[in-house]
Amino acid sequence: MPQPLNLHPDRLFPADPTVRAIARRLYDSIKDLPILSPHGHTDPRWFAENPSFGNASELFIRPDHYVFRMLYSQGISLERLGIPRRDGAAVETDPIAIWRLFAGNYHLFRGTPSRIWLDTVFSEVFGMTVALAPDTAEQYYHAITEKLATDAFKPQALMDRFNIECIATTEGALDDLKYHGAMKGGAMEKRVITTFRPDDVVDASREDFADNIKKLGELTGEDTHSWDGYLAALRQRRAFFRDHGATATDHGHPTAATANLSHAECRTLFELCISGKAGSAQQELFRAQMLTELAGMSIEDGMVMQIHPGAFRNHNPRIFEGFGRDKGADIPSPTEYVKALKPLLDKYGNDPRLSIILFTLDETSYARELAPLAGHYPCLKLGPAWWFHDSPEGMLRFRHQVTETAGFYNTVGFNDDTRAFLSIPARHDVARRIDCRFLAGLISEHRLGEDEGFELARALTYDLAKKAYKL
Amino acid sequence: MPQPLNLHPDRLFPADPTVRAIARRLYDSIKDLPILSPHGHTDPRWFAENPSFGNASELFIRPDHYVFRMLYSQGISLERLGIPRRDGAAVETDPIAIWRLFAGNYHLFRGTPSRIWLDTVFSEVFGMTVALAPDTAEQYYHAITEKLATDAFKPQALMDRFNIECIATTEGALDDLKYHGAMKGGAMEKRVITTFRPDDVVDASREDFADNIKKLGELTGEDTHSWDGYLAALRQRRAFFRDHGATATDHGHPTAATANLSHAECRTLFELCISGKAGSAQQELFRAQMLTELAGMSIEDGMVMQIHPGAFRNHNPRIFEGFGRDKGADIPSPTEYVKALKPLLDKYGNDPRLSIILFTLDETSYARELAPLAGHYPCLKLGPAWWFHDSPEGMLRFRHQVTETAGFYNTVGFNDDTRAFLSIPARHDVARRIDCRFLAGLISEHRLGEDEGFELARALTYDLAKKAYKL
Amino acid sequence: MPQPLNLHPDRLFPADPTVRAIARRLYDSIKDLPILSPHGHTDPRWFAENPSFGNASELFIRPDHYVFRMLYSQGISLERLGIPRRDGAAVETDPIAIWRLFAGNYHLFRGTPSRIWLDTVFSEVFGMTVALAPDTAEQYYHAITEKLATDAFKPQALMDRFNIECIATTEGALDDLKYHGAMKGGAMEKRVITTFRPDDVVDASREDFADNIKKLGELTGEDTHSWDGYLAALRQRRAFFRDHGATATDHGHPTAATANLSHAECRTLFELCISGKAGSAQQELFRAQMLTELAGMSIEDGMVMQIHPGAFRNHNPRIFEGFGRDKGADIPSPTEYVKALKPLLDKYGNDPRLSIILFTLDETSYARELAPLAGHYPCLKLGPAWWFHDSPEGMLRFRHQVTETAGFYNTVGFNDDTRAFLSIPARHDVARRIDCRFLAGLISEHRLGEDEGFELARALTYDLAKKAYKL
Repeated sequence: MPQPLNLHPDRLFPADPTVRAIARRLYDSIKDLPILSPHGHTDPRWFAENPSFGNASELFIRPDHYVFRMLYSQGISLERLGIPRRDGAAVETDPIAIWRLFAGNYHLFRGTPSRIWLDTVFSEVFGMTVALAPDTAEQYYHAITEKLATDAFKPQALMDRFNIECIATTEGALDDLKYHGAMKGGAMEKRVITTFRPDDVVDASREDFADNIKKLGELTGEDTHSWDGYLAALRQRRAFFRDHGATATDHGHPTAATANLSHAECRTLFELCISGKAGSAQQELFRAQMLTELAGMSIEDGMVMQIHPGAFRNHNPRIFEGFGRDKGADIPSPTEYVKALKPLLDKYGNDPRLSIILFTLDETSYARELAPLAGHYPCLKLGPAWWFHDSPEGMLRFRHQVTETAGFYNTVGFNDDTRAFLSIPARHDVARRIDCRFLAGLISEHRLGEDEGFELARALTYDLAKKAYKL
Repeated sequence: MPQPLNLHPDRLFPADPTVRAIARRLYDSIKDLPILSPHGHTDPRWFAENPSFGNASELFIRPDHYVFRMLYSQGISLERLGIPRRDGAAVETDPIAIWRLFAGNYHLFRGTPSRIWLDTVFSEVFGMTVALAPDTAEQYYHAITEKLATDAFKPQALMDRFNIECIATTEGALDDLKYHGAMKGGAMEKRVITTFRPDDVVDASREDFADNIKKLGELTGEDTHSWDGYLAALRQRRAFFRDHGATATDHGHPTAATANLSHAECRTLFELCISGKAGSAQQELFRAQMLTELAGMSIEDGMVMQIHPGAFRNHNPRIFEGFGRDKGADIPSPTEYVKALKPLLDKYGNDPRLSIILFTLDETSYARELAPLAGHYPCLKLGPAWWFHDSPEGMLRFRHQVTETAGFYNTVGFNDDTRAFLSIPARHDVARRIDCRFLAGLISEHRLGEDEGFELARALTYDLAKKAYKL
Repeated sequence: MPQPLNLHPDRLFPADPTVRAIARRLYDSIKDLPILSPHGHTDPRWFAENPSFGNASELFIRPDHYVFRMLYSQGISLERLGIPRRDGAAVETDPIAIWRLFAGNYHLFRGTPSRIWLDTVFSEVFGMTVALAPDTAEQYYHAITEKLATDAFKPQALMDRFNIECIATTEGALDDLKYHGAMKGGAMEKRVITTFRPDDVVDASREDFADNIKKLGELTGEDTHSWDGYLAALRQRRAFFRDHGATATDHGHPTAATANLSHAECRTLFELCISGKAGSAQQELFRAQMLTELAGMSIEDGMVMQIHPGAFRNHNPRIFEGFGRDKGADIPSPTEYVKALKPLLDKYGNDPRLSIILFTLDETSYARELAPLAGHYPCLKLGPAWWFHDSPEGMLRFRHQVTETAGFYNTVGFNDDTRAFLSIPARHDVARRIDCRFLAGLISEHRLGEDEGFELARALTYDLAKKAYKL
């Protein structure tokens, strides 16, 4: 006998009736605001070519590292989940078998945000009324897969249904942005924008770094084997990205280190890095220097700079060798900001034209470092709870630990940061509910007026993102 | 006029009536489940020889470092509490005087878990109905001491009364396990098992290390002064411990460092360590390498591996010199896991035969490192909130910070980790109440179904420990 | 239409009616207790000379780095806020213009403790009944400024109105304490005391260090260019401070490092430091050694030692150059205690005559390091949540993370740590409300008796500070 799938209208609000009623009032005032998604990893092809999304397993399992990392942690091989191997060796290809395996282990997600997002998509997007479980697996598979074949479930229709006003994708510095180009002049032009993520030409520890620098030269006609030519090429690419809608850059570095070297030191370091002879400390110094260089370029061209430090990428070499990047094996590390950012801040920190949005995977920095920094430096704002912390408890810790020192207005609203397009409304809904809940707590304790709460609910949902990302 | 001692049936549940009612329902469904105590420090002699526990002071004060560290922090000398000195110098010997001193300072424990455990034992085990205070000190002392002299308060009777299905003690690698041997064939055989804790023959920084290696050779007939003989001797001892019920090993290291050296490097390092000439970095490297060696042995023999890192042992040299180890002067330190565990995980992390249970004294690692690691690696599970964090708030922080990334099924239920046998039901009761409270919170906020809550309450109380420790 | 300014009588209490009612009962029992302010930065001149406080902007904006750092973080220059520049360049001098700018940005403080303190002062001290906002800015400015001109708003009258039993100021080692001297024999003598803060003659990284050592010699007649003469001079100054009421010393170091060098090593290190040739590691070692020396002096003379580590001072060089110290650009850093304090604790940690009050800006140390240390060492107590953490959430985290291991009696009550004299009752009121709220939580969950709650509320408000600071 299947359990019903009920999304309670008051989900994620606290049980206390006073606080819940306030949270509900705030939420009702903002739940229908359009979605701004200023940082994420959806595929621009979807919006340009409007394809169907395939079957339920392709949509929900294969691309979602939150899902398969949990299954893997309980001994289920990635091969059985149909994750393609780099060596082309056989993996499960029957999507129904994969879906059954997932459904049979759906209990593993109890208490996780994936469970909330998935149930919300199942209910709100696909209209499911029973819970996913072994005995409903096939019913789910077929219901979802059939709907995905219809026009109403194609990307452009969903953009409207989801009320997405603007979504940013993320592309590497060498990307030709052909899908963004193809959208020019169409209905999606201003709704789908790119983001400039130059890690591929900034991180000299990558195996493809030398190649990438060469390609950067070919793309731009600059001599990218000279420091000045390299910088000129980056400026050119930034302009190209801006022409395809980009208002922001993004930097996924292992640490928040910045540097402020002389021009001569930069030249020497750059030459060492492109020679392939740089050690890891020199590669780290180069990344550090490049954050400062890129901040300088942001002052010139007005692009907002996002820094996402602190992930130890590809921690599990067997998974990396077998399946490649982004397979659930990235692990957060302790991340220091106060000393790390000082060289950049010493140079540019007081410049009102600069806007840097900081993220962290190390929650200990919220109250100790990030809120004090953002509560002082005009150029700094704090991005929302990120990745492993994009969750009800993670968001509550963010607000509880950040607000008293940084206030609300040094934060920038929500980022869904996802490649799972169908989950975007669910993710924003969690953020909206949790923000309203947090505000309701303050109001119920007479730390904030309810009139202020309505203003803030709107700011956290819409206004702050619009302003911070210059949308 | 003494205050009454009332254990409220809803203690540790939140005040909100909705959440409390759910917590109560969940708790009622699991409160009578048998106790599994898979990690602890009770004395196996108790279960083999079934002696009386002596008097109230001997039972509650002398062995309980939670109790005397708090009293010491407020200026009460360990001598006045009857803690024996290594040099044999006089200490207080009148148990009633010691008990009076304790009772006179019982207010110091307000807000601590010791207070909850003690009151629960006083009420539930000894039937006390007034609160411990200066004016009830003697009444308490005599009531407890008289009961301790009766058969109903001897260890084996209490095993039944407490409904302990299985309890693991912890013994060093050189232990003869004579008490476990004596229990063979008796009623306690499967209920009292040992745990293999080889720190004494793995930690080359110990003064007795060379002696211990020699004894290990004598015990096993192996040449423990060669690397290969040393490893063979460890394998032999593991088999001996398994023959006395052990299903797990335990490793109390200063850090979580692991290493993966070549056979030749291991040999050289081992020789340096047994020569007594190793520096502290080399001793650390040897401990690190041994965690990897022992993980390999766990794959061979199926023993579950527990790693308890992060205590700075014997921080107070005057206490160590005067009174020895385990006298309340161990202090937690910042503990890193992501880099530390990588060598071991690179070698064995994807092997489904390996099971490692990680503990921490550094709560900052819960959400940042441990939950992401356990939510990916098949070999890793997370032990419960440990030692200073074995407390209502500590357990809540554990669940709040771990669940969203690791889920419930990468955790292993509760460990009481205690030498205070009479407090075991009280400690498990706190854990059961707090877990039910946490689940009730999720249910009341519609993040979990109540039917799922009942399943999880049972899993956290019984099933997960049974499975993780192979009981 | 202005919003009303209503301070709800139950502000900062939780919404749950059961918990709120308990919190209210506890709070009613202690809200009128006199204020002890054993650590702060008010100007002793106020109490000696009893001047008027000037205008609203001078009182609330110019001296309050919490206020102007937030405004600065949103792009408002310190010049526009009338903060004087070191180079004497023009800044805004119209206090009404400054006040309007503040009022126009008052929404930035939503969710911050500044907002709570300010609203409380506006309402309770100045009787304002409408909220501060752009349209009430001038009404506020004039109402406040007019009241400030009256005798009832002068410092001595406010001391009585605020029911301040004792307040400690903080002076450098070279201060002549003339205002404290002037108060001798008067009504303020025992109510206003100094605190000995010798950073200026202990921190060899300061530009004025050599000068200060010279002045210390002149003041004391000791040869402060010899190690022994330097120590003798410090002892003399401590006696001078004690003669002006001081019961405590205070030490604001970058880290908690302590050292225990030989006399010969000290002499060499001291000579290096006063020569101006010490590197930063040597300056750090000297500060570390001095904490141990000063602990020894505390044992001699009974002064309580406060250690405030972990601030990265003057992080923003442009603000430091332009405006000097204490301009909102100090940022907390990760702070380690367990290894750092060991040299001092090894030497003096078990001495019952020593009393050290530890503070932190790194909340990760609460449960991991500080509570375990204070729950063991007789000489250690924990100061309250400090600076960025002197806030409702900060105080709750302190109690939640510290109490289970250190109890209540290893803490010392509240410090307002402020130079904003008019906000002192508001700050103490927040602490009283939050402590009562925390206790009410324990009581409502049957973790503490309500009778104990009343005792503890009084202890946390008054008794513990009185005892810890020997007032």
